[in-house]
Amino acid sequence: MSVFVTPLTPLAFLERSAAVYRDAPAVVDGERRATYGELGAHATRLAGALRASGVAPGDRVAYLCRNRLELLVAHFAVPLAGAVLVALNTRLAAPELRALIEHSGARLLVADASAPAAAALAGAGRPASLHEIAWADPPPDAGGIAYDDLLARGSGEPPRWGVDGEHATISINYTSGTTGGPKGVMYTHRGAYLNALGEVATAGLGVGSAYLWTLPMFHCNGWCHPWAVTAAGGVHVMPHEVRGPELWRLIDREGITHMAGAPPVLAALAGAEEARPLDRPLVVMTAAAPPNPVVLAQVEALGARVIHVYGLTETYGPHTVCAPQRDWTGRPAEERARLLARQGVAMVMADPIRVVDSDGRDVPADGRTMGEVVMTGNNVMKGYFRDPEATERAFRGGVFRSGDLAVMHPDGYIELRDRAKDIVISGGENISTIEVEQAIASHPAVAEAAVVGVPDERWGERPKAFVVLRAGRSATPDELAAHVRALLAGFKCPDRFELVEALPRTSTGKVRKHELRRAEREGRAPA
Amino acid sequence: MSVFVTPLTPLAFLERSAAVYRDAPAVVDGERRATYGELGAHATRLAGALRASGVAPGDRVAYLCRNRLELLVAHFAVPLAGAVLVALNTRLAAPELRALIEHSGARLLVADASAPAAAALAGAGRPASLHEIAWADPPPDAGGIAYDDLLARGSGEPPRWGVDGEHATISINYTSGTTGGPKGVMYTHRGAYLNALGEVATAGLGVGSAYLWTLPMFHCNGWCHPWAVTAAGGVHVMPHEVRGPELWRLIDREGITHMAGAPPVLAALAGAEEARPLDRPLVVMTAAAPPNPVVLAQVEALGARVIHVYGLTETYGPHTVCAPQRDWTGRPAEERARLLARQGVAMVMADPIRVVDSDGRDVPADGRTMGEVVMTGNNVMKGYFRDPEATERAFRGGVFRSGDLAVMHPDGYIELRDRAKDIVISGGENISTIEVEQAIASHPAVAEAAVVGVPDERWGERPKAFVVLRAGRSATPDELAAHVRALLAGFKCPDRFELVEALPRTSTGKVRKHELRRAEREGRAPA
Repeated sequence: MSVFVTPLTPLAFLERSAAVYRDAPAVVDGERRATYGELGAHATRLAGALRASGVAPGDRVAYLCRNRLELLVAHFAVPLAGAVLVALNTRLAAPELRALIEHSGARLLVADASAPAAAALAGAGRPASLHEIAWADPPPDAGGIAYDDLLARGSGEPPRWGVDGEHATISINYTSGTTGGPKGVMYTHRGAYLNALGEVATAGLGVGSAYLWTLPMFHCNGWCHPWAVTAAGGVHVMPHEVRGPELWRLIDREGITHMAGAPPVLAALAGAEEARPLDRPLVVMTAAAPPNPVVLAQVEALGARVIHVYGLTETYGPHTVCAPQRDWTGRPAEERARLLARQGVAMVMADPIRVVDSDGRDVPADGRTMGEVVMTGNNVMKGYFRDPEATERAFRGGVFRSGDLAVMHPDGYIELRDRAKDIVISGGENISTIEVEQAIASHPAVAEAAVVGVPDERWGERPKAFVVLRAGRSATPDELAAHVRALLAGFKCPDRFELVEALPRTSTGKVRKHELRRAEREGRAPA
Repeated sequence: MSVFVTPLTPLAFLERSAAVYRDAPAVVDGERRATYGELGAHATRLAGALRASGVAPGDRVAYLCRNRLELLVAHFAVPLAGAVLVALNTRLAAPELRALIEHSGARLLVADASAPAAAALAGAGRPASLHEIAWADPPPDAGGIAYDDLLARGSGEPPRWGVDGEHATISINYTSGTTGGPKGVMYTHRGAYLNALGEVATAGLGVGSAYLWTLPMFHCNGWCHPWAVTAAGGVHVMPHEVRGPELWRLIDREGITHMAGAPPVLAALAGAEEARPLDRPLVVMTAAAPPNPVVLAQVEALGARVIHVYGLTETYGPHTVCAPQRDWTGRPAEERARLLARQGVAMVMADPIRVVDSDGRDVPADGRTMGEVVMTGNNVMKGYFRDPEATERAFRGGVFRSGDLAVMHPDGYIELRDRAKDIVISGGENISTIEVEQAIASHPAVAEAAVVGVPDERWGERPKAFVVLRAGRSATPDELAAHVRALLAGFKCPDRFELVEALPRTSTGKVRKHELRRAEREGRAPA
């Protein structure tokens, strides 16, 4: 630090808004409301409480909460204490959560009753590293302490807003890896700061903005929106469920101007009985799959503007945006939908997006030649926590290899064509097909299994399993589903289990998943 | 550089916009129009031309131009060539310009006929360091080469967009120092990048924005707007003069959404015959003096939104903004004007603004206790070029000492009360009273002189001189004015020279300027 260099950190955004907008609204969470002054005071108090609870600089603090005031506070309080935030997916099953918490080495967990598996972590199944569980809104007989008792440990002495080095880790976000164990994606203070400003610029967030939290904060730290909305001095509004009536109630009552989420959020917005033309501008940022042209038209007919973005956990959420051109307005709806379905160009704070061949050379911008999407720059993760090998693999060739396959159009916009990684994206959640296959194969009756994504109107894609049973053994699809549900989050469990004689394989023995997908689409048995 | 760290530089903004908005409008300069693709090509070509002309990394390249396409291009092309941009004030006199160019050591000057003194630099009066002058729109018989001939030296091979280290100097902006020689304020690539994003967030710049260049680009690199508007993909519109009819012509024809400037710009806007209610939002950023309540009301009555900012050359232009609070709307006009007249709070990318006593301790936030405004952070200059002593003085105590005196209000907003430095601000131009006094005192008939700022309806302040003649010598005010005009820019020459018997002094011999100002306000002779 010197007179003219201050390390970049999103902590500065709450420091500023807590002072500048101290009496202005910051959070609406059900009947609870907080001003920016109160949000700042809550964060400094909790940071002090974490220190008093033995959390040391660099320690991990895990959260297992729905979108709520406490999880927003954590995005500032945990780094303010010098620690690293690990926001966990509330939809995961107890064994999954246990593995992630142990991998992170978190010593403290803050949880609420929204995660079905939360209670299981408190008892005999408590992860080894965990010293303490604090409950915001506890399930019955949970053990641990109340969140308010944790908070009460905080002294009045506020910690210094700021960080010594901007490349310090601010958070770890677990992603479902396609191979091996959990992958903890490390974000830096600098990356989070720049991403937040990039979101402000891309979405046009300002002091009059009201942001509806339809996107889970445990996904890529809510695409850095906890920091971006706070930088802008906008209001964070927490819906209690992501369904039409609740969304429209808050749009009306809180004057929502921005929201974000996977395509089901768009569908919930447009499909609600309450849907009606908006009386103020609304920006809806969407990712995980191109917006469905019908839903896109419905949402735009309400007067909302849809921004299509694309990224991965490893890129702090959105890395590209399908930046609209001035001359797109007025084009036929079908053409606009086709243009907007593309993943687009790098956001303003990101390095240019590239699509490369197997030798790492850019493919021609012809809209036809496929290659792998690769990224570099300040919004690429620092690496995987405690996994130098996986980090090295992801960074080979001096770029982050997304595993996604795309073409580069002549206008410089990328369009995804396929995923090189075996991932199904269902309602914005990544599902590793390999993980699901392993879960199925652990059933004693199963010889082998293959899982593919099949199109689904509501969720975009859903996993489907093709299962070969061991000779002389039997298992019903319901038995297999129950087996998987005991091991994995419910959303990862295939909707359908099809028992087959054998899986189609290449001459080298690889399952021809492409063939399974095609057979599924065409409604016939796999060859 | 690594996979996840790219040095911050505003060059990235043009690299991106030239690709993403290649066919969209970027510049309107009279009848000339350029797309972002053309702007990018112009910049890369000029960067190659500078290299081919012997400009080496770290060299300075000076510009003496009105706001025009070429000066905008320079903000990218010069750093793209690895060099440092020195944009000079076209209103300065030949001796002043010569001193600045020599101090900078610039080897190349790009000039146009807008600077009255430009031709004088081309002939026998050419600064020693200067190898070459290139003319964009030359005065008659100017010598040197044409800008297009310079440009033609550029090879087709585009330089790499980017910089090796983000703390490298991108530009030097000369400020009228109150003591000693010229002070060259050094900006870094990182500072320029962050300031530009801060401007985007503060002004709400976006791809639909059209920015009217009423603010000279030679002032603090136009408050980083060359980079900010380009980051947003907005349109740069160059007025040929900052007068009502031209402003309103462009507001209508080009759909202006943003502009910036000193209070005379507001007055020109509101006072024009063409003034009428706007049919789209217009944001006007103003600095140098609090907006006059009457003009503020006039401008707001047109439908424009005024943003009051404050900063210095040393802070890349604006550092604070009088951030409006939600509950200010609807208050009585008089109260709103009083609230908006304050210099406000740190912008989103800046460290918190402070007001300190002589021991460097924060003054109480009581709206009464005066102290000095001090700044730190990424938008504070790296230092004064080739002047470590002045840099050390400016940075003593580990902060940048603005020299401005202010109070801190209970709501955290600062309000300037006086200037510790002897500066008159006239129409947004800083005038060092010491420099003017020295120019007057160099007249053989003058014993001593004192210059103070007196209120002026159009320019905010104008300098006035109190002059004591040598015994037995005589000089008329007109003779003194002619003498000053030969040495300094016309705007620095006092409007009035009052001959007095003696200057009021303190017991230690310091001129009591406060008394001169008060006497002037009260219309009586100084004691």
